Amino acid sequence: MYFSKLFVPTLREVPAEAEVISHQLLVKAGFIRKSSTGVYTYLPLAQKVLHKITAIVREEMDKAGGQEIIMPVIQPAELWLESGRWDVYGKELFRLKDRNERDFCLGPTHEEVITDLVRANVNSYRQLPLMLYQIQNKYRDERRPRFGLMRGREFIMKDLYSFDRDEEGLNISYKKMYDVYTKVFKRCGLDFRPVLADAGAIGGNSTHEFMVMAESGEAQIVYCPDCDYAANVEIAKCIPEENKQESAKNIEKVKTPQKRSIEEVSEFLNLPAKKFIKTLFYQADEEVIAILVRGDRTINEIKLQRLHPANIMEMASAESVKNVSGCIPGFVGPVGLKNIKIYADEEIKTIVNAVCGANEENYHIKNVQPGRDFEVFAYGDLRLIEEGELCPRCHSKLKSARGIEVGQVFKLGTKYSKALEAKYIDENGKENLMVMGCYGIGISRTVAAAVEQNHDKDGIIWPMSIAPYQVIVTPVKVKDEIIWSKAFKIYQALEEKGVEVILDDRDERAGVKFKDADLIGIPIRVTLGKKYIEENVIEVKLRSEKEVQIINKDDIISHIMDILDKERDNIKQYC
Amino acid sequence: MYFSKLFVPTLREVPAEAEVISHQLLVKAGFIRKSSTGVYTYLPLAQKVLHKITAIVREEMDKAGGQEIIMPVIQPAELWLESGRWDVYGKELFRLKDRNERDFCLGPTHEEVITDLVRANVNSYRQLPLMLYQIQNKYRDERRPRFGLMRGREFIMKDLYSFDRDEEGLNISYKKMYDVYTKVFKRCGLDFRPVLADAGAIGGNSTHEFMVMAESGEAQIVYCPDCDYAANVEIAKCIPEENKQESAKNIEKVKTPQKRSIEEVSEFLNLPAKKFIKTLFYQADEEVIAILVRGDRTINEIKLQRLHPANIMEMASAESVKNVSGCIPGFVGPVGLKNIKIYADEEIKTIVNAVCGANEENYHIKNVQPGRDFEVFAYGDLRLIEEGELCPRCHSKLKSARGIEVGQVFKLGTKYSKALEAKYIDENGKENLMVMGCYGIGISRTVAAAVEQNHDKDGIIWPMSIAPYQVIVTPVKVKDEIIWSKAFKIYQALEEKGVEVILDDRDERAGVKFKDADLIGIPIRVTLGKKYIEENVIEVKLRSEKEVQIINKDDIISHIMDILDKERDNIKQYC
Repeated sequence: MYFSKLFVPTLREVPAEAEVISHQLLVKAGFIRKSSTGVYTYLPLAQKVLHKITAIVREEMDKAGGQEIIMPVIQPAELWLESGRWDVYGKELFRLKDRNERDFCLGPTHEEVITDLVRANVNSYRQLPLMLYQIQNKYRDERRPRFGLMRGREFIMKDLYSFDRDEEGLNISYKKMYDVYTKVFKRCGLDFRPVLADAGAIGGNSTHEFMVMAESGEAQIVYCPDCDYAANVEIAKCIPEENKQESAKNIEKVKTPQKRSIEEVSEFLNLPAKKFIKTLFYQADEEVIAILVRGDRTINEIKLQRLHPANIMEMASAESVKNVSGCIPGFVGPVGLKNIKIYADEEIKTIVNAVCGANEENYHIKNVQPGRDFEVFAYGDLRLIEEGELCPRCHSKLKSARGIEVGQVFKLGTKYSKALEAKYIDENGKENLMVMGCYGIGISRTVAAAVEQNHDKDGIIWPMSIAPYQVIVTPVKVKDEIIWSKAFKIYQALEEKGVEVILDDRDERAGVKFKDADLIGIPIRVTLGKKYIEENVIEVKLRSEKEVQIINKDDIISHIMDILDKERDNIKQYC
Repeated sequence: MYFSKLFVPTLREVPAEAEVISHQLLVKAGFIRKSSTGVYTYLPLAQKVLHKITAIVREEMDKAGGQEIIMPVIQPAELWLESGRWDVYGKELFRLKDRNERDFCLGPTHEEVITDLVRANVNSYRQLPLMLYQIQNKYRDERRPRFGLMRGREFIMKDLYSFDRDEEGLNISYKKMYDVYTKVFKRCGLDFRPVLADAGAIGGNSTHEFMVMAESGEAQIVYCPDCDYAANVEIAKCIPEENKQESAKNIEKVKTPQKRSIEEVSEFLNLPAKKFIKTLFYQADEEVIAILVRGDRTINEIKLQRLHPANIMEMASAESVKNVSGCIPGFVGPVGLKNIKIYADEEIKTIVNAVCGANEENYHIKNVQPGRDFEVFAYGDLRLIEEGELCPRCHSKLKSARGIEVGQVFKLGTKYSKALEAKYIDENGKENLMVMGCYGIGISRTVAAAVEQNHDKDGIIWPMSIAPYQVIVTPVKVKDEIIWSKAFKIYQALEEKGVEVILDDRDERAGVKFKDADLIGIPIRVTLGKKYIEENVIEVKLRSEKEVQIINKDDIISHIMDILDKERDNIKQYC
């Protein structure tokens, strides 16, 4: 492809709304353009990257026994009513009516449609296991779409659904997909980690997220440097810290005028934050509940949701707090609370001589003892894990990192097969529910994640396997007949060998050409300049390296092919 | 692929609503399933056919200089308001609101989005010509979705848009696409014809439709056996028939009791239908107009729309007819009509001694003369052409045929670049409107059209280039070790050579296997049965032929590869 023909509208400035680097670079380098909030057009370079990723995904899904289909984007409300999600999905679901006033939604996911398809067409154990997948647009009317392709309203997903006879079969399918996902992201040239995660609204009881490691990632994870434990902090299991032995003292009310925060009271009483009981009130649907965590800990709302499931779970209003505690926030505590469920983090169980609010303005209580001074409705793991805590598997110290979720594998179990009555007849003529799994890869998000992980101040550094083009041939002066004709020959020879190559035929300064090549991130740049005329050598620069390689003109094609072959071999080991 | 693993839910019965053969066969053979009215899931075999077609389309578009992008499905109303189509598109446009009550539609076509993209990113003549395309879902809330993939509400299209500096450039792009479309459909193995067509609501002033010839086609076309003229009857130009010379007689009112239709009056008065003037009234928006065609002709509403453009054009109600003519339908005519525009077909101009209604119940008028007895507001080509009429190009007799529209190429001109102000600066620093073309291929409809054209009573007969699999290997008895092991070896050998092959590993009767293979339409069936054991020969049957070829076991692979190579060579001539 000639650079002059390529539709790659690079920009000098990036839109102010582009907060993250992938958004900035993908717009600046002419890969994407915004159409409306959270909705993008993919320009030719982005489309090429998407093709690369989907080809890898398709190949691996097929090898694992997946069969590709395409399900509708517009889904009838009836199916969502049947699964019970029409009402609970809320505003994230794009809804519309057809000309006959029938309700539809734009699919954010396809559990309903696939379960409907399979229940109608599969009825014997002989037809199981079955794995069906598709690659297509998904829709989610995000409250706050942002970060370019990272959190869009229209995005491209691969979603595979597995149907098995039983849990055992599901475990096999799940393991298969877990392994395939590992292959896919390795082949995409990404540094990633599968982590334990929360199953969220989609349901099911076991799930891993595949995280591309990047400082800008929205997800916080912890991982163990000594074993393979890795988890989203949302779900990472906390081991309660042991307390120093000390004997329990008598309860004592102390005046703490205007000292509201743990920090203020801690300083005022000269007691460490870990001696405090932090009391928080949540509105869980119609009910207000109290949650206790140690003063130096943070509550984990995802874990709270598991202990006390509710459709809406949010901090209670100041007014509600006053209603239940008789006091304004800042001086509340569990002692004397009535008619309210108190949930406490495991660490609270063994706390001795703790400090908490007195439920009276400007007063706290010292030497509080759970069990003695207040009753806990239920203990549980309710706090957010922190770096340096112990690995729940091997007790090494955990490290923390940030990641971008690009894939997720779920065990759905019978959630949807039960709701939609997807059954099969087993060997004994008995009817059973199919056991399902679902497995997603954010294709367009993977494009953004690749950029977040692979860039420098000059632009994108595409991994070879998903680069839009592998090589850019840059004749420094296109009007120099000697330079141009050799550049053209190299371009032609590489194209004949099936290499995807751009010939920068533009009559521009070398600096402009190098800048563009760096910005769009082509892995190999081949430059013909003064040195070619004077010394018969050609410069090869890898986008990922600083040094320039000087190659004899006769060796140039074999040299480039060597680089590409090495990459290919490197990837083959995962295939 | 093992047949037992393939998700191909064939049926014995087809749904009653499946009126056309492609709908029946695609459902019966397990290619598609309905999700909601006009919305389908494509199962693995259909997905494979779609991949084949899109690969051909993509390759040809790229070779012609097209660059692939993906534009959004959800399009902001603002752009449609800017082009003026938000209000005129009517109920066919799926409309929805996001959580912030902003209006969107699901793209039925992408002129607005692409023009918006290009006006923002192209401003110099150096960036033109530009051809961008995409392959993705389109949406049209059809009043009467039907015929399976032929007229759906969600369907897959390839749409390419060309941007040129001027009309001359557009003509080059148009010609390029016309030629590329010819290649695409030839490569798909289809019998088709490009025909002149009406530009319809999309605008523009020149267009061809690509029709796959099939008796079940919705479109009626005429073509000339002696030159390359071919046109949709909607637009085919009619040459007025010459009238016999005769002298004009005096007007004469005749009683025609209860004789309403041309047929009845013609019989009653013993005068041929071609001597009659048929008078029809149309409601054109707020206005009622009268249209005259010869008694034996049919009015062509598309042509009428061109002569008298209106947003709504429909037959006037009996009440309206009475208001303007003073008479009930059946006895109306142009003589004495007042305050109404009368449009007449060219043939009316030279009619002598015609018969028409008297605008009085039970009366007609004989010997009517246009010009003498009534005034015509405008003459034009207003009738539907018929087989046997003269070719407007070479005056041979036209033939008629039916076709399925699978592609269309349009010259849009400046319709959208003007509305959205898509301009570029030319060599002289002057601003000009870009000149546009748009070019669509109905990818999913092509699947249906291929079936309409290629089937027999037993099922589908896929053209080799778009078949889901090329070969099916059928061991008649899978439990016979000798048969099975040879069948497996053939399967393996073909797979290694890159042939897409199904191994029918099912323990079923030969009849069942043959029936399924015929139904799903695999081009080459390789059968190992008794003859293999007794005579060391293998049967090869082409789906498109009746005879079975008997091949020595050692020649089987080379024989199949020969068939495939021949097919490939046959297609190469178009590439």
